[in-house]
Order: sequence, then structure tokens, then C-alpha cells
Amino acid sequence: MLLRRSERDSVLLRLRDGPQVVEGRGVVDLSAFVGQAAGAEVTWAGARYRLLRPSLSDRVQHLRRKAQIVTPKDAQYLLYLAGIGPGSRVAEAGAGSGALTLILAHAVGDTGRVFSYDRRPEFLEVARRNVTAAGFADLVEFRERDVATSGIDEPELNAVVLDLSEPWAVLESAHSALVLGGYVATYTPTYNQLERTVQRLRSLGFEEVRSLELLERELHVGSGGTRPEFDMLGHTGFLAGGRKV
Amino acid sequence: MLLRRSERDSVLLRLRDGPQVVEGRGVVDLSAFVGQAAGAEVTWAGARYRLLRPSLSDRVQHLRRKAQIVTPKDAQYLLYLAGIGPGSRVAEAGAGSGALTLILAHAVGDTGRVFSYDRRPEFLEVARRNVTAAGFADLVEFRERDVATSGIDEPELNAVVLDLSEPWAVLESAHSALVLGGYVATYTPTYNQLERTVQRLRSLGFEEVRSLELLERELHVGSGGTRPEFDMLGHTGFLAGGRKV
Amino acid sequence: MLLRRSERDSVLLRLRDGPQVVEGRGVVDLSAFVGQAAGAEVTWAGARYRLLRPSLSDRVQHLRRKAQIVTPKDAQYLLYLAGIGPGSRVAEAGAGSGALTLILAHAVGDTGRVFSYDRRPEFLEVARRNVTAAGFADLVEFRERDVATSGIDEPELNAVVLDLSEPWAVLESAHSALVLGGYVATYTPTYNQLERTVQRLRSLGFEEVRSLELLERELHVGSGGTRPEFDMLGHTGFLAGGRKV
Amino acid sequence: MLLRRSERDSVLLRLRDGPQVVEGRGVVDLSAFVGQAAGAEVTWAGARYRLLRPSLSDRVQHLRRKAQIVTPKDAQYLLYLAGIGPGSRVAEAGAGSGALTLILAHAVGDTGRVFSYDRRPEFLEVARRNVTAAGFADLVEFRERDVATSGIDEPELNAVVLDLSEPWAVLESAHSALVLGGYVATYTPTYNQLERTVQRLRSLGFEEVRSLELLERELHVGSGGTRPEFDMLGHTGFLAGGRKV
Repeated sequence: MLLRRSERDSVLLRLRDGPQVVEGRGVVDLSAFVGQAAGAEVTWAGARYRLLRPSLSDRVQHLRRKAQIVTPKDAQYLLYLAGIGPGSRVAEAGAGSGALTLILAHAVGDTGRVFSYDRRPEFLEVARRNVTAAGFADLVEFRERDVATSGIDEPELNAVVLDLSEPWAVLESAHSALVLGGYVATYTPTYNQLERTVQRLRSLGFEEVRSLELLERELHVGSGGTRPEFDMLGHTGFLAGGRKV
Repeated sequence: MLLRRSERDSVLLRLRDGPQVVEGRGVVDLSAFVGQAAGAEVTWAGARYRLLRPSLSDRVQHLRRKAQIVTPKDAQYLLYLAGIGPGSRVAEAGAGSGALTLILAHAVGDTGRVFSYDRRPEFLEVARRNVTAAGFADLVEFRERDVATSGIDEPELNAVVLDLSEPWAVLESAHSALVLGGYVATYTPTYNQLERTVQRLRSLGFEEVRSLELLERELHVGSGGTRPEFDMLGHTGFLAGGRKV
Repeated sequence: MLLRRSERDSVLLRLRDGPQVVEGRGVVDLSAFVGQAAGAEVTWAGARYRLLRPSLSDRVQHLRRKAQIVTPKDAQYLLYLAGIGPGSRVAEAGAGSGALTLILAHAVGDTGRVFSYDRRPEFLEVARRNVTAAGFADLVEFRERDVATSGIDEPELNAVVLDLSEPWAVLESAHSALVLGGYVATYTPTYNQLERTVQRLRSLGFEEVRSLELLERELHVGSGGTRPEFDMLGHTGFLAGGRKV
Repeated sequence: MLLRRSERDSVLLRLRDGPQVVEGRGVVDLSAFVGQAAGAEVTWAGARYRLLRPSLSDRVQHLRRKAQIVTPKDAQYLLYLAGIGPGSRVAEAGAGSGALTLILAHAVGDTGRVFSYDRRPEFLEVARRNVTAAGFADLVEFRERDVATSGIDEPELNAVVLDLSEPWAVLESAHSALVLGGYVATYTPTYNQLERTVQRLRSLGFEEVRSLELLERELHVGSGGTRPEFDMLGHTGFLAGGRKV
């Protein structure tokens, strides 16, 4: 549940009986709020909070981060590039902090499944905690495995999403793991990585190969008029995708 | 099912016994292919086709269009802005050609529901056909209604998505129709519309108000090197969103 | 002369006999360097400096700033939009910190002339000092005058450049002051200002009306590859222009 | 002189006595207009034309083109990057159609000089005609020479501007040809070229190394409101620059 006091002050936690540790708040006991419906207002530590069912963006904003996360604009477009929706079976590598894992789990829903690989146990641990906190533990299987050397071991996948530094090393294995008509999508920061990825997608016979980037520009609506914001994130990553046919 | 010959030559249809009309191909009888599994190869009219389970992008690309459609980058981000996922109850206005309807239906899945409003019966008809062709008819209710004057009549919505020329006229009604914690998101081409929408969102007490645009830049990976494509769509629309708290 | 120790440590001053005040360095005596040619290396306060003839960017970087300045990309394009080159007679309002004044003076050269208006004496003072320090004092006439109410009083101009909050109020006067074939160009941060400026340009009969913005994206070439920089200035201002025919 | 009937119908030519060939108009005799002042209105072939002193943009728009030309936004920024102004001595390679040559000549004015190299005589011929037509013949020396193999032979340059496919092959020679404090600037379409150029700039000891691109977005001010134009040029080229110190 999201306990929300204001846009900048909210806590995402599981309401349960007895004391629990809440980051930044120490040990707290929220037993009194268990069973309250979404929408209810409660008083906690002298302040009024609204109980809300958390949205995907609430969950992403409350992630513990150990790594740079894929931004929402890119994550949402990766879903589209990779044809991911309710019921999809998806492999992801690496797990990172679990931000993309969470977005994948949200998209595949109860009838889908996400296999999240990482060779670094400390990242898997963070990702697992984040995914569990978001309530998606049942939809995700975490696997400690270096897919660049050992490949993807899960067959009949609808999509493979790669957010790692050498995606080209995994593309052949991804091709084998995909169903016919399935997609692979990658996310990499440099043009050198993009170039090598696209060349490998083509040489492996992937079709519908695409590569692109998305720029997000916030708008400022103020008393002096409307204009783009002065601050902007100039770059996040390049997206590429292909389909096994 | 998608009958796919190549990236640029594919047909999206429902495989069924007996003759049927397929746009651009006249009356055809595909009875022989009924029951074939996804992935099978078939010969039709002298050419080899692959049967594939259609992805969301296949569906969007095969839409009959009567109106300009929301682009995938924008549609995907609207989902995020409006917190839409499996199980969401969403209202949309207007229906247009049903492109966004289809993306909403895909995202909410079998446990969700989309209410699609349009005051123009001819658009509703096209949207309905597109949504039915995509296999989402059970998830969508179409309603002929001018929401600017008559409001949204469906209560307890998780999200309201507005793709019409005067979204500000619908925001008060959207606020009433939303659950606490629900979101409204809008899509408009001009800054004037954006400005008026954001001002109205604020005056109605919506929180977490955001406004932005996304620019999509394709990359070209060729023998001479890698560079952004020379052609680019310079503008699609501005997105805005807010949350009822 | 530019005394340059490194990319981030340089001083722009006029080499002359006797003590002088140099900002950030107190009173110094550089008599020993007078007469040294560009390219010479000198020792000052224990460090080695190279004497260089200052470029336009050196001058812009060493400006004292009292106001936000027009960025180089925009200033350079304003020159193009307004058809400014060697020999042009140009009026500018407001003077601001004199950054654009300096760029205009650099472009019109010894055979041209810049008339720089501002209604705020304290800005005119800063602009005058900056322009003098850059060695362009002979090319520029500063005038304390509110052009929005009193108009531009200099006739037969090749170009008028407006960097003020209500450019539309000056366009009629600019039209009168221009020669046939002359240009007006404006620089404003909001859409609302741009819209009103363009509408006024059209209603006054200006032709070749254009409006645009420029986005500058730095590239990062590093050991890990090449990519756009993460930091970016999301917006500076909108440019508009028209021609009197 | 520019004979201008409307924004889209104008002719750039030298008014002189006797018949002359004007592209698209055959042989014409404009003797009657010789001596008319800028601003005068004349009747030619049944239509009214205004005589105007041509601006830089008039000249660029009336170029005969044999090659893709550097766009104005990029050309103007190259001037800034390379510190070019009245009096500068500049080398350029290659000449291409002479578009950049013309912009360089315009910027250096009567006291400057442009040396324009190309190894292809047919391009030099076009460039020479364009520069002569624009009235800048006295400021430019054309040289048939492959600077990649034979180097730049002109010493004491303030700036070297490279618009060719392998700029890195010319950077050492450019370094030798520059005065201390002089600049080199390059323009290339791919990331790969940019990367190699920047690496070479650094290994040769150039300082103040920069690399960037400019995106130009036109704005549409119409009766329905203001918005960015739908059409946009997605890419022109990457700019890089460095300074010899």
C-alpha cells in the first residue's frame, strides 16, 4: 500500500500486523491500518496520510537502487518493441536493481512469467527485494547466471530483453530461446554498442530490425507562459529490436 | 492470426472455415489453414507464408485508419502516466480509429475493462471493427456520447485517457469518475491546448501534474557507419497527466 | 589580449603600461608584457601563460554577466536570420549584458554599426564595459531608451534584433526603421511570446516569416565509446524572423 | 542584385548592360534596370519585381548545387567554433558546391581571405561559379589539391574548416598550418567519423576539444494554435572543434 502525505512524501510498504522496519523511519507498527480500504485517510506520526493502491510509477519511484535504471519512457517502449503483454513469457538480463523486472512483471500479469538473469548475486538480491516489495514475487524467477557465456536456458520465450554491456554476445542464444515470431530488444548507452548489436541482429537473421532513441522533454506551464523546461536529460540509451521469423 | 510473407507483406485475419473477405485480396477461403499452430508455414496463392501469433505492433500496423492515430511511443507513455496495467478500468475519449483503444485493451488484459466514448458514430464503427479484428471485443465497451457536454458516466475508474481537442472540458467529469489515486492523461498537438489543460488540472486539484513530449529518433546502421536517420517526425503531441488524491 | 594558462584558467585584458585592476587578481602590473606578440609565452605570478589574440568565444566566456545571455548557437543563427554581415547597420534591444551586442559588433566589423538600446541604465553600463573590454567600443552606440514606448530612432537599418519580453510592441517601429529588404529577428523563451510575435509580424506585412528553435546536444567521446552527453540544456529560446519587402 | 517577386519567386544576378543568360529564363536583357537603387520596383516580363541587396540567405538559396550543402545552422556554428570573423585567414576542404565557402567569405569580409581546397576539378568549377555569382571572388582562392595526401600548403591560418569524409587524415597538416590560438572545425555525418576525429584531435594535442550536434525544429503558428512542425530534418552532421595552443 502507498501511504501518501504529498507528492514528495510517501511510503510504499506492505500493511501487516506487528512491528516492521521501514527505511528512513526505523521500526514502526502499522497494525492499526491493516484492513483499511484504498482511499482511506489515516494519521501516522502526527501527519495525515492517504492510503492508495500503488501505481507502476509509485513502485518505480520507491525502488532501492544499486544501479542506473532504465527510464520509464525507454522501458515502456521496450515493451512495445518486444511485443510484451499479458501472458508473455519473457527473459531479461541483467536484472540490475529490478526496475525493468518490475515493469516487465506488471506488463505480463498473472498469466505471464519473467525470467531474470544476472551473474552478480548482490544485484539479484536487490532486484529480488524490490520485486517482492512491489508484490510481483510470484511472477518472476531470478537466476544467477552469466548469459554471455552460458546462454539463456529457458525455452519458448515470447521476448528477450537485454540491458547489459555486450548484448551481441547473447543474441544467438536469445534466438534459440525465442518462439517463432518472438522478439529481442536491447538497451545500450553508446553508439558503438548499438552498431555492433544491430550488425549481429542482421547476421543472425533477425527481421524487422529497428534502432532508435527517445528524447523526453518536460514542459513548463507557468504564470509567464509555457515553454520547454530548461533542464533535460540529454541521453539515456539507444534501443534496438528484431524478430525471429 | 498473422500470415507473414515478409516484413512488408503480411495479412492479419481470423482463420475460420469458409470464404471470407480480406481487404485487398477479395474473397478467399483459408479453411485449409484452420487449426495450424503458430509457427507453421503454409502456401497461399503461390507464396509461402508463416503463421504467427500477432504482436501489438502487428495489430497497430494493420489497423484501418479513419483518423490520425496516437503513435506507439506516446501510447506507451500514456499507459505509464495513467498507471494502466492488468485489471485497470479505463475510460477513453474519443475512440478515433480505435488504435489507442486496442493498446489500452492489450494493457488491461482479461481482468480489466475499457470504456471508449465518441460522439461520432462513424468513428465508433471503425474503432469497433478494429478492436474486434484484434480480438479484444470482449474487453471494450463503446459508447456514443459527447463527453465534453454529457460527461463520463462510468464510475470507479482507475484511469481516464483523453485524445480530443478540448480535454479541459472533460476534466471535471473525469475527476468525479476516478477512484482516489486514479489518473487522467491527455494528448494534444498544440501548446495552447496543453497550457489550458494543465491550468485546468491544477485548478481542479489534481496532483502530480506533469507535461512533456517525446521525440523519437531512428538510427541508421549502414556500411558507411552509424548516424541518426535524416527523416524524422518533428512532432506528434504533448502529453499531460494528473492524479486524483 | 588573452593570457591563457589552460582551458579553464585564462584572463582577458588589455595589455598596457602601469598598474591596472584585473577581476579576481587585484591590482597587477603587466607592463613587462606590452609589445609581446600573440603566441609568446610569459611568466606571471609564478605560472606560464600563453598570449593569444582572443577569439569571439574567448570574449563571450569572459563577459561580466548581469543577465541571462543569448547562447552562441542562437546568437549565430540570429545573425543568419537577420542577414547580418560586414557593413550591416543593426539595432538591438535590449542591450542586456552586452553579449549579443558583442557578437553583433564582431559580425558587422569596422564598416558596420550597432545601435544598442536599453531602458535600464545599469544594464547599459555593464554592456558598455563588456563591449569596451572586447575592443568593440568604436562600433557600438548605446542608447538609454524604452523602444516599446518610444520606438527605434535610427533610420535605414539593415536589421533589428529584439531580445526583450514584448517584442511585438516594437515591430511596427522596427518596420519603419528598416531598409527595404531588411530583417527583424526576435528571441523569446515562451511559446506565448513566439505566437504573438509571429502574428504581429504577419499583420504588419513582414514576409519570409520564420520561427524555429535550435537544440544543442554535446557528444561524449570516451574510452567506453561515443554517446550523447547525459546533461543537456533542454531549452533556451525560440527564434523568429521576418523581412520588410 | 536580387529581383524578388515573392518569397518563392526571385532571381539573383548581376545587373549589367547587354544580353545575359539567366538560368530558367533563357537570354534576357536587363540593361534598363542597371543603376536602379536597391528598393526600386521594376517590371520584367509582365510582372513586378523588387530590387533588393541580396542577403546571405538569398545567396545560399540561389546556389547551384552539385553536392549536399552544410545547413545554415551548422555553418553558422562552425564560424563560432572556429573563431572566424572579419579579417580571418581560413582554409576550407573540400570546396563542395561552394556553399560553405560563400558563408566563410561573407564572414571574413574584405580584410580576410579564404583558401578553398578540393581534389575534384568539377566541384571546384561549380564552387568558383557560385562564389563569383555571390560577389565574393576576390576573397577566395581555389586550389585543386587532395589535402588528405598533400596537406594544406597555406601557413599562418586562423582557422581550418573540414567538410570531408576523413578529416582525421588532415588534422596534423591543419595543426602545422594554424597560428597559435587558431582553431580547426569539422563536419561529418556519422558517429564513427566523429569519434575518430575527436580521438585524433586529442592525440595531436589540440585543446578545447568539443563535439556536438544541432537540431533545428521549426514552429508552426496557425489558426488552430502553435506547435512544432510535423516535418523535421532528423540529422545533418556532427560538429567537432579544437584549438592549437
